[in-house]
Amino acid sequence: MHFAVVICLVTNGQETRNILTGDYTELTDTKLVDKEAWDKQPGKPQLSWGSTDVRYSKLNVPSVNKTQRLRISGWKGERVNAQAILWTTNNLEKVSLSVSDLTNGKSVIPASVIRTNFVRYVMTDELNKDGKGGCGHRPVKADWDSSVVADVLDIIKVKDVNARSAQPIWINTWIPENTKPGVYKGTVTLTYNTSSALTLNLEVEVLNRTLPAPKNWAFHLDLWQNPYSVARYHQVPLWSKEHFDAMLPVMKTLADAGQKVITTTIMHKPWNGQTEDHFDSMIFRMKKMDGTWEFRYDVFDKWVNFMMNEVGIDKQINCYTLIPWALRFDYFDQATNRIQFIEAKPGDKAYEDYWGPFLKDFARHLKSKGWFDKTTIAMDERGLDAMQEAIKVIKNADPDFKISLAGNYHPEIEKDLYDLCLAFGHNFPADVKARRDKEGKISTVYTCCAEALPNTFTFSPPAEATWIGWHAMAGNYDGYLRWAYNSWTKEPLLDSRFRSWAAGDCYIVYPENRSSIRMEKLIEGIQDYEKINILKEEFKNKNNKSKLEKLNTLVSSFTPEGLTKADPTQAVQQARTELNKF
Amino acid sequence: MHFAVVICLVTNGQETRNILTGDYTELTDTKLVDKEAWDKQPGKPQLSWGSTDVRYSKLNVPSVNKTQRLRISGWKGERVNAQAILWTTNNLEKVSLSVSDLTNGKSVIPASVIRTNFVRYVMTDELNKDGKGGCGHRPVKADWDSSVVADVLDIIKVKDVNARSAQPIWINTWIPENTKPGVYKGTVTLTYNTSSALTLNLEVEVLNRTLPAPKNWAFHLDLWQNPYSVARYHQVPLWSKEHFDAMLPVMKTLADAGQKVITTTIMHKPWNGQTEDHFDSMIFRMKKMDGTWEFRYDVFDKWVNFMMNEVGIDKQINCYTLIPWALRFDYFDQATNRIQFIEAKPGDKAYEDYWGPFLKDFARHLKSKGWFDKTTIAMDERGLDAMQEAIKVIKNADPDFKISLAGNYHPEIEKDLYDLCLAFGHNFPADVKARRDKEGKISTVYTCCAEALPNTFTFSPPAEATWIGWHAMAGNYDGYLRWAYNSWTKEPLLDSRFRSWAAGDCYIVYPENRSSIRMEKLIEGIQDYEKINILKEEFKNKNNKSKLEKLNTLVSSFTPEGLTKADPTQAVQQARTELNKF
Repeated sequence: MHFAVVICLVTNGQETRNILTGDYTELTDTKLVDKEAWDKQPGKPQLSWGSTDVRYSKLNVPSVNKTQRLRISGWKGERVNAQAILWTTNNLEKVSLSVSDLTNGKSVIPASVIRTNFVRYVMTDELNKDGKGGCGHRPVKADWDSSVVADVLDIIKVKDVNARSAQPIWINTWIPENTKPGVYKGTVTLTYNTSSALTLNLEVEVLNRTLPAPKNWAFHLDLWQNPYSVARYHQVPLWSKEHFDAMLPVMKTLADAGQKVITTTIMHKPWNGQTEDHFDSMIFRMKKMDGTWEFRYDVFDKWVNFMMNEVGIDKQINCYTLIPWALRFDYFDQATNRIQFIEAKPGDKAYEDYWGPFLKDFARHLKSKGWFDKTTIAMDERGLDAMQEAIKVIKNADPDFKISLAGNYHPEIEKDLYDLCLAFGHNFPADVKARRDKEGKISTVYTCCAEALPNTFTFSPPAEATWIGWHAMAGNYDGYLRWAYNSWTKEPLLDSRFRSWAAGDCYIVYPENRSSIRMEKLIEGIQDYEKINILKEEFKNKNNKSKLEKLNTLVSSFTPEGLTKADPTQAVQQARTELNKF
Repeated sequence: MHFAVVICLVTNGQETRNILTGDYTELTDTKLVDKEAWDKQPGKPQLSWGSTDVRYSKLNVPSVNKTQRLRISGWKGERVNAQAILWTTNNLEKVSLSVSDLTNGKSVIPASVIRTNFVRYVMTDELNKDGKGGCGHRPVKADWDSSVVADVLDIIKVKDVNARSAQPIWINTWIPENTKPGVYKGTVTLTYNTSSALTLNLEVEVLNRTLPAPKNWAFHLDLWQNPYSVARYHQVPLWSKEHFDAMLPVMKTLADAGQKVITTTIMHKPWNGQTEDHFDSMIFRMKKMDGTWEFRYDVFDKWVNFMMNEVGIDKQINCYTLIPWALRFDYFDQATNRIQFIEAKPGDKAYEDYWGPFLKDFARHLKSKGWFDKTTIAMDERGLDAMQEAIKVIKNADPDFKISLAGNYHPEIEKDLYDLCLAFGHNFPADVKARRDKEGKISTVYTCCAEALPNTFTFSPPAEATWIGWHAMAGNYDGYLRWAYNSWTKEPLLDSRFRSWAAGDCYIVYPENRSSIRMEKLIEGIQDYEKINILKEEFKNKNNKSKLEKLNTLVSSFTPEGLTKADPTQAVQQARTELNKF
């Protein structure tokens, strides 16, 4: 039996919201069901290994070659994924999973490093009608073909499965770094209706190389965090203990993916409130009656300290933004006792008057915290003229301020940008990239709604997330940026569609630390980047030109042009298999 | 030639407003004009003494017995009013006025203490249709009979007068305290068309008694000031030098009327924004992330210091309000970086949590400024239950906090109220009033939109304003309160009508220190109160029972019942004449 625990909370003056806790009822799949295929199925539930590259249909018989034994391989320290699929013609009650230790003689990969998740279904839509991406507003949901897709990796441990439905199971093994190389074998047991069971054999081949802990990865990952989204979803006061408690596991998952950057916002609505929960200012700025400014950093400090000390993301702090999408700047006005807005654009005196005193004081504050060298004043997708004016204001406040931009490549300002993240399809000239590397600057790439593929929409083929890591390597980028790690929709577990952009663009993980197929596959690509990076170093050090050449060839097709020549899923599958042969 | 200087200013995000400076064009009077009366007038302009109790029609021949000589009388230190009226069948250009010194042998009342004003016309409406007052909303102006009425005492010194119109002239003489008793004679000269002139004889009989300076009057005057209105009208930043510069003469006029109380607001919209310019909080309150409060008093202090030290109103500070008309309480929330509102009613824990910490800190602050004993926590027109709960919270914060209420008489809480102002028609029991006097408590009376008469609507007969002072004496009240000294309408010089209440209810003076017939007549009544008070003391001291009896009889008809028996204008005229015979 399915059951849903829906707790309705009303907050002061806010609309009523539902918080889903525990199990929940997915939205209805309205797609056609092949009833005849079910008629041909045996009465007993079926369990087989499937592919991690497939989002299995919820209400159809999965198209798998029924397989009992799966062998996957990985480096010591690597996380390796597998997907099993259960399907049944009858209702199953209380389905649960257990995994044995994986053993190799006396050596063991303990069951405790193996995570199993029921894969859940979320509502998605589709690319724009021209197939050219997923940007733009989608005010009328009915205008878009919608369906439920397998994406959520749920945290519940016992689940009923309806007759004539499929239930994918995600299995992630984080191979301990100290594991002895070799093949480790064990079983996955699925129990249902109290006493019945099905089993699968899982074999993990541990290769004799080591992937370091995510904290030590070279890959510069920058998925923007939205703390406001977590507070709203959990109906807890912003920056309260309950808020941080809710964020901790979600942000730790991000840290485990190798995240390097803390997203901070230093003004009201840097992106004009485009997400379900707008970002607000973490800075208190008061314009006093005498025209001078007072700044306070309590919220900023609390968030940064949490991310650094509790979560462990401590390389960089990006502060959005000096050029918001609507050029209105908030402050608390002492005289009127109200929040007021200044409208000004870079280059205006009012702009300098607003930002100059803040940036000077902010530099002082950051230095007192020892954070100045980690902090960038961050902008994204703004024009060259505006950037140049903003850079003047920043450098005027403190010439040593670091600056970041996610946007197009502009040679005019490239040198001013410590952290420059180019839009997919833009490249750093080789000499520029080499100089930037020498200067210790960060040079990365981002995708957004504009790309039909690769993408991490909830309907995107999962391997495209992995493809992103390979592309970062192929383009000689230091890493990857996405604008939204967890800007949740109103009911993110149920419906990934939003008023703008193709479904899933706003978030890649789900509430209460539910991961996703997209997130797991993205981590695969980051791990692959890291592995290639390590191999390259090794081959360079050993002067093993043939292997280096072979490796470069393996990577070379992961370019925008490569996408037009090969199916990204096949390309990723082949390349990953090859990679583990090095 | 008439000319209008209209300066259009646009402020950030605000709507466009007009500021009238210098001369201006009044709204059109649409009332019927008696053309035949004009046809009978001579070609030469006419000038005569009129009555200060008449609002002369703008476009009709004034009904006056043409009078050349006027004698008025007053005490040393008293302000005495006269009204002249000019009417003309032809256009007059550059009309201006000059007054000679008034002389009595070698003694002089210098021209410098005589103020002349052109009386200007402002749009007004009428009482409610049932004649029972002027309360309630008036969303559709056309539902009310409107006309222009003489009220504004303009500050311009030269003015054109159109053919077939009347131009009243207000003449106020502030008899210096050191003037020798006797009859002082002089002339008022009206010049027009460059070289033509008309004259009137003015005689002021100075009686041998002295009215002290307004600062020393016993009458407790409390007209609520609206600083927000001045900032908006003048389009100057709140609490800026320009703002205080604009307020200074307006507030000095109030001080000269004997005002005792500084109106302060300690929360957002104490009256739910019912005026054109809502009152805002003069207190900055921040709820910090740890749940504690921080309070800052910069605005409050600046306003109070200005009123005390620049304006000279320093007896009392009333702080509105613990029981606003909408039970929503504002604060700046550090976590969300936004202004938030708590909804709570007296008796709720949330109410105590909001007000308790503030009142404790406020008491500390007031004591540090030496203002604690002058300050009251003020409420108006709220129910007994709510008052009782609010009083608990105040006394819990500091048992010595003074409290004020403008409202009905409630014996249950009378003792808790330092400053108790009763609604017109409510009386203090004699023993209660005697005890309150002994305890040094303030016991006053107020009128508002509820009274058809007496009132100070722009259409009210002027003597009703004077009647108010006599009523305060008759009812043994210590003084008088009105809810609005200067809550200006959008274009207060042109149109005294408002979306609520009968016209003129929101303000009794006009921008840029333009007084009004209403204000001058109100001051007459306050002076009369003060004079009667002085005489009573004298007769008591001299044990002159017959004069005391005579004085009491003179006053005794100025009660709500008295209004039904005698026309207030006649009653005031007779009583004032008698008063100067004592």
